[in-house]
Amino acid sequence: MNIKGKNHTSIWYENGRIFYIDQTFLPWEVKIREMQNFGDSVRAISDMEVRGAPLIGVAAAFGMYLAAGEGLDLRASAEELRNTRPTAINLAWALDKMLETAMASNKNGELELLEAALDIRESEIERSRKIGEAGLPLIEEIYLKKKKQGGSDNTVNILTHCNAGWLACVEWGTATAPIYMAHDKGIKLHVWVDETRPRNQGAKLTAFELGAHGVPYTLIPDNTGGHLMQNGMVDMALVGTDRTAANGDVANKIGTYLKALAAKDNDIPFYVAMPYSSFDPGTATGRHIPIEERSGDEVRKMQDGRRKTQDVRRKTKDGRGKIGSILIVPEDTPVANYGFDITPARLVTGYITEEGIKDRL
Amino acid sequence: MNIKGKNHTSIWYENGRIFYIDQTFLPWEVKIREMQNFGDSVRAISDMEVRGAPLIGVAAAFGMYLAAGEGLDLRASAEELRNTRPTAINLAWALDKMLETAMASNKNGELELLEAALDIRESEIERSRKIGEAGLPLIEEIYLKKKKQGGSDNTVNILTHCNAGWLACVEWGTATAPIYMAHDKGIKLHVWVDETRPRNQGAKLTAFELGAHGVPYTLIPDNTGGHLMQNGMVDMALVGTDRTAANGDVANKIGTYLKALAAKDNDIPFYVAMPYSSFDPGTATGRHIPIEERSGDEVRKMQDGRRKTQDVRRKTKDGRGKIGSILIVPEDTPVANYGFDITPARLVTGYITEEGIKDRL
Repeated sequence: MNIKGKNHTSIWYENGRIFYIDQTFLPWEVKIREMQNFGDSVRAISDMEVRGAPLIGVAAAFGMYLAAGEGLDLRASAEELRNTRPTAINLAWALDKMLETAMASNKNGELELLEAALDIRESEIERSRKIGEAGLPLIEEIYLKKKKQGGSDNTVNILTHCNAGWLACVEWGTATAPIYMAHDKGIKLHVWVDETRPRNQGAKLTAFELGAHGVPYTLIPDNTGGHLMQNGMVDMALVGTDRTAANGDVANKIGTYLKALAAKDNDIPFYVAMPYSSFDPGTATGRHIPIEERSGDEVRKMQDGRRKTQDVRRKTKDGRGKIGSILIVPEDTPVANYGFDITPARLVTGYITEEGIKDRL
Repeated sequence: MNIKGKNHTSIWYENGRIFYIDQTFLPWEVKIREMQNFGDSVRAISDMEVRGAPLIGVAAAFGMYLAAGEGLDLRASAEELRNTRPTAINLAWALDKMLETAMASNKNGELELLEAALDIRESEIERSRKIGEAGLPLIEEIYLKKKKQGGSDNTVNILTHCNAGWLACVEWGTATAPIYMAHDKGIKLHVWVDETRPRNQGAKLTAFELGAHGVPYTLIPDNTGGHLMQNGMVDMALVGTDRTAANGDVANKIGTYLKALAAKDNDIPFYVAMPYSSFDPGTATGRHIPIEERSGDEVRKMQDGRRKTQDVRRKTKDGRGKIGSILIVPEDTPVANYGFDITPARLVTGYITEEGIKDRL
């Protein structure tokens, strides 16, 4: 989607090289890095320079291609990548696809692996586009209904949690795909963007990408959505998913469950945008999905945007630099940091997939 | 309660002078200030140097006494204080009580007003103590039940939101009063402390006061409570209130409603600690309670604890100093910042009051 009017994707292949946006620098700087070797792909995923279930899968696919070029053992490389992030199923899905490709190849399969990685990337774009087309009528319907009711304002208000935008995918995003399409079509809409503590992907990524594309939004603390829903200020909640179980239970960023409860309590439709690459029919229910626990420092510290863009890069030993951070509580504060929660299927109005909207899976 | 083993209250009168802890410096520094004149009381409340419904009432009462000493018009002074914070009813309650006292007095009533303010302070301590005694059996009951079940761990896990601790009151707190009493009695308990964005009163105040008194706790992002409740990690939710309407609807810190929904969904008791000074029988339902909207900068900025205690005080024109803050999103980010939300009475298991536990009001 657009940044200052110019189209971008989150990861791409150009003149034999792989590039991606290092999202740890957003919203302060659009930092483009090259993924030069297998180690880069592991670090990019585990340090969350790339994140979001679909994008992780694509980045891992490129990582496997790079591993082949370096003559690394592909099974071991796949395992290393698989262990970086446990919750999103797209990672395992992409790695299995790459391993299959390698086994079907007669040599080390470097070229076939590149082709497969590019295919995975293209197919994620296509999935997102189709999710957008499937979800667009939901927004149109609300818009037309509000227009017919003739209130002073027929803006469609959508609440989203975390980032299921193009930055989490390659283009369009999942939850944001219908939003971008509706906006581009001239439908008046406005997005309530949950800050999404502790990593603030809503505040840093969703707010950035919506703003950069020109979609009106308002940043809110994660605590606020219930109040907005109680007061008729939300027409629809729309989130992504890191893994959806066979019974329709949805693993998504921690806090999603609370918004789903509030939507239910206020009769507001709660939709999950789900490419089938995030569906895991092999996992029976949400209880069986592993929930990633992350470092307490993600809660104790906050990234520091005080410096101007050119100064935010702190020097690091490896020369890559990083955004500085400050302690917001004493450093010995005991903390729990679960990355995801499970929204039971009973709270989900529908799943917006590349094959249309499904009531159940 | 204790800080490093020494007992403290949040506001007190000593040798003819009024002192309070400036809570904007916590947890980095226990900064004690003197409330020297009426203007100090207005600033202390509006800048949230003192906050928490009961404490605001006490601080305003001392403010009225100071106004009388300065020969100010008491009605106008009461209105000025009344307008500082709209949601908590204790403020209006204390001011009305002080105005009554002034009217009943034959002179300007300075001495009577001091006596009334000290009475209000004492009565808040007494209310808190009684709330603690009323709530203690709830915790004991869970503890004994868990012990009887004979699991490996019979710790009582309590989740709380924002700060309804002694820092929000004078001593004991409201939601924390049963917790301190249970802890002091040797019951094994542990508190999940919601960070409470955007002002982080959980992270800064509740974590501080529990830790300083020796109560085990874990800080969590506001998004986390639902996941913990789904996984049997919370035995009880316990919060305070800024105003409770005649029908039992509870205004409390934004995000409380979401936790109440999660408690209901997981069959976890959800209690509201409510001194009758927070009860407003004149307001029919939660819909009629005004919800304070605060500055967007509370969301855009984060206080900076990086510096050591002696350095956190930044110089300000008035010489009072303040904790520095950083931008966590670009400063032109559109933001909504509602201070409170309404938890419908149907989600409340009971109200722990100074007159015992009530199912309904």
